[in-house]
Amino acid sequence: MSLLIDRIGELFTAEDRVLNDAAVVCEGDRIAWIGPSAGAPAADERLDAGGRAVIPGFVDSHAHLVFAGDRSAEFAARMAGEPYTGGGIRTTVAATRDADDEALRANVARLTEEMRRQGTTTVEIKSGYGLTVADEARSLRIAAEFTPETTYLGAHTVPAGADPDEYTALACGPMLDACAPHAKWADVFCERGAFDGDQARAVLTASAAAGLELRVHANQLTEGPGVRLAVELDAASADHCTHLSDADVDALASGSTVATLLPGAEFSTRSPYPDARRLIDAGVTVALATDCNPGSSFTSSMAFCIALAVREMGMTPAEALTAATAGGAAALRRTDVGRVAVGARADLALLRAPSYVHLAYRPGTPLIEAVVHGGNQVH
Amino acid sequence: MSLLIDRIGELFTAEDRVLNDAAVVCEGDRIAWIGPSAGAPAADERLDAGGRAVIPGFVDSHAHLVFAGDRSAEFAARMAGEPYTGGGIRTTVAATRDADDEALRANVARLTEEMRRQGTTTVEIKSGYGLTVADEARSLRIAAEFTPETTYLGAHTVPAGADPDEYTALACGPMLDACAPHAKWADVFCERGAFDGDQARAVLTASAAAGLELRVHANQLTEGPGVRLAVELDAASADHCTHLSDADVDALASGSTVATLLPGAEFSTRSPYPDARRLIDAGVTVALATDCNPGSSFTSSMAFCIALAVREMGMTPAEALTAATAGGAAALRRTDVGRVAVGARADLALLRAPSYVHLAYRPGTPLIEAVVHGGNQVH
Repeated sequence: MSLLIDRIGELFTAEDRVLNDAAVVCEGDRIAWIGPSAGAPAADERLDAGGRAVIPGFVDSHAHLVFAGDRSAEFAARMAGEPYTGGGIRTTVAATRDADDEALRANVARLTEEMRRQGTTTVEIKSGYGLTVADEARSLRIAAEFTPETTYLGAHTVPAGADPDEYTALACGPMLDACAPHAKWADVFCERGAFDGDQARAVLTASAAAGLELRVHANQLTEGPGVRLAVELDAASADHCTHLSDADVDALASGSTVATLLPGAEFSTRSPYPDARRLIDAGVTVALATDCNPGSSFTSSMAFCIALAVREMGMTPAEALTAATAGGAAALRRTDVGRVAVGARADLALLRAPSYVHLAYRPGTPLIEAVVHGGNQVH
Repeated sequence: MSLLIDRIGELFTAEDRVLNDAAVVCEGDRIAWIGPSAGAPAADERLDAGGRAVIPGFVDSHAHLVFAGDRSAEFAARMAGEPYTGGGIRTTVAATRDADDEALRANVARLTEEMRRQGTTTVEIKSGYGLTVADEARSLRIAAEFTPETTYLGAHTVPAGADPDEYTALACGPMLDACAPHAKWADVFCERGAFDGDQARAVLTASAAAGLELRVHANQLTEGPGVRLAVELDAASADHCTHLSDADVDALASGSTVATLLPGAEFSTRSPYPDARRLIDAGVTVALATDCNPGSSFTSSMAFCIALAVREMGMTPAEALTAATAGGAAALRRTDVGRVAVGARADLALLRAPSYVHLAYRPGTPLIEAVVHGGNQVH
């Protein structure tokens, strides 16, 4: 099956490269042709962009979707002044353990569909609300039904009543063994109150030995060893990067680890935003992702994250959109998504707007008119 | 025609009053019955809320929808560091004058439909991008095709090349005469660089004499006389209220003028947010509105404004939703909208969420599942 998208007023291909009056032809699940709309070849089906903008489908490289329960009351209390410490994760752990597989699957289905309607065509999904061997493994089995980008996050928090070192040993041993067959990635929440540098290193090196690639929750709430550990272990991404020393920035600039920024978390915890400008100016590759989770950032909107990045983090609209597409792809070490290029996956979003700049210029306004995923129009 | 909405998990009727397991019956364009879902009477049609939340349709009491042109480039430049002075209004004035009626009508239709899909069932629409007798009058004629809440804003800015006092006289005389038949309200942008206190007073008193009710753009960019003038003239609303002295707050607390806060403008101009907490604690009635316009706040999302109000302005989710519904109604001196009550208009929104708190808890995420407007399901 082939699909022609023509009369594209503005085609954002990657970074700040824009084509006007363009067309794209998808063949099967790949992009086969890009060029001027007037000279476009015919195809089996046609989507008339009517002068509007087309962008790569968003790549949301950080999401926690396998969970049960609701923490809106905790959110409201936090907005009324209670601090965010990450401790609320345990509320979700209890609800997740209590839920049956079907309830967890329905939650992931609901949220991935919600994301897709908003233009997200690639999503990473973490475990981390099970925290037992069985619950972590089933979380990843369920996640793998929805995406190849599954992440073992047994080391999300130390469960209530457990000894931190014993739990770390579990996460490096039997839990990892049970989860590795269902996961592509391993991740650790390296933070005061969660896992320290030595514990994080233990989980990450054991996971790498088990064949998993690495990513790290690093420097969200405080400065700490997470970012430098991520770079040292050549993790694909250090996520959050809110509190960075100069040494952390230098480390990121010297390696290939992407800095994945999650402004939804700062929004919903009323915390200072990460300084994207500082990272970009230092030469670091930056990604934007939602951190979609029921505690600290229950948004599924990449457009919202772009608007925040422009308002709060010193990014231009082009930098923010690049971070939400090609940046997310880099954070997943993929080159087949996050850009509009011949040979790339046919994952595209048509905006109800003449320019991608409207993603920041029209904050909060749903602008996704249509979504093409793997060459099929799915919305 | 009657419509039953039943199995409402949470019905937010007004302020912080919530009913669980509720139902609403609409008869024609009014709400006829509210009670427990189990005891609800039958109706011609049924909308099953499936345990989700229902809220009053949003009342967006401040929007500038009659315009042509795009200012995304100005937005991007501002985000890169250029200050917002309000001068860009003239760009839109030039484009609006050049547009034919059909183009202006299509723009209003597009934006009101976009708003309605997002749960807004009452919208105020201002003129203010014509700034000639003919262009202001046609702006209001077109606005009146979409809403009864039309506002004459000839005194939006002094057009390029005009003498401020001569233009004020025009706005108090021939322009007002041409516009008054199509307008319910009159408004002035009382601000340094726009109209000073004396000029604003002249336009407002002339407008009141012509039978229009009053509202004022006041204290957006600087402290000034706008808020106190609004209270003195018993304007329905003082809009923006970003820079307030204690005397301004006292004035608002002593009168019936609503403080309408427009956080989309602060978001998109990277300005400090108004202090809603201070106003509420002083006993002032607060409204939230989008300020939807192509220059300083091109959002149409009341949910986005609610999320900002909770994050940035010290409002609880219940206060923010009240401000976006009953508050907006008060700013339009209406009691038939903005609340779910027997006899009120049947304007309701069904959320894709179990609680209204999700409007702030899930920022940026489109949560409007269905919209009932005048008793008809329109989305």
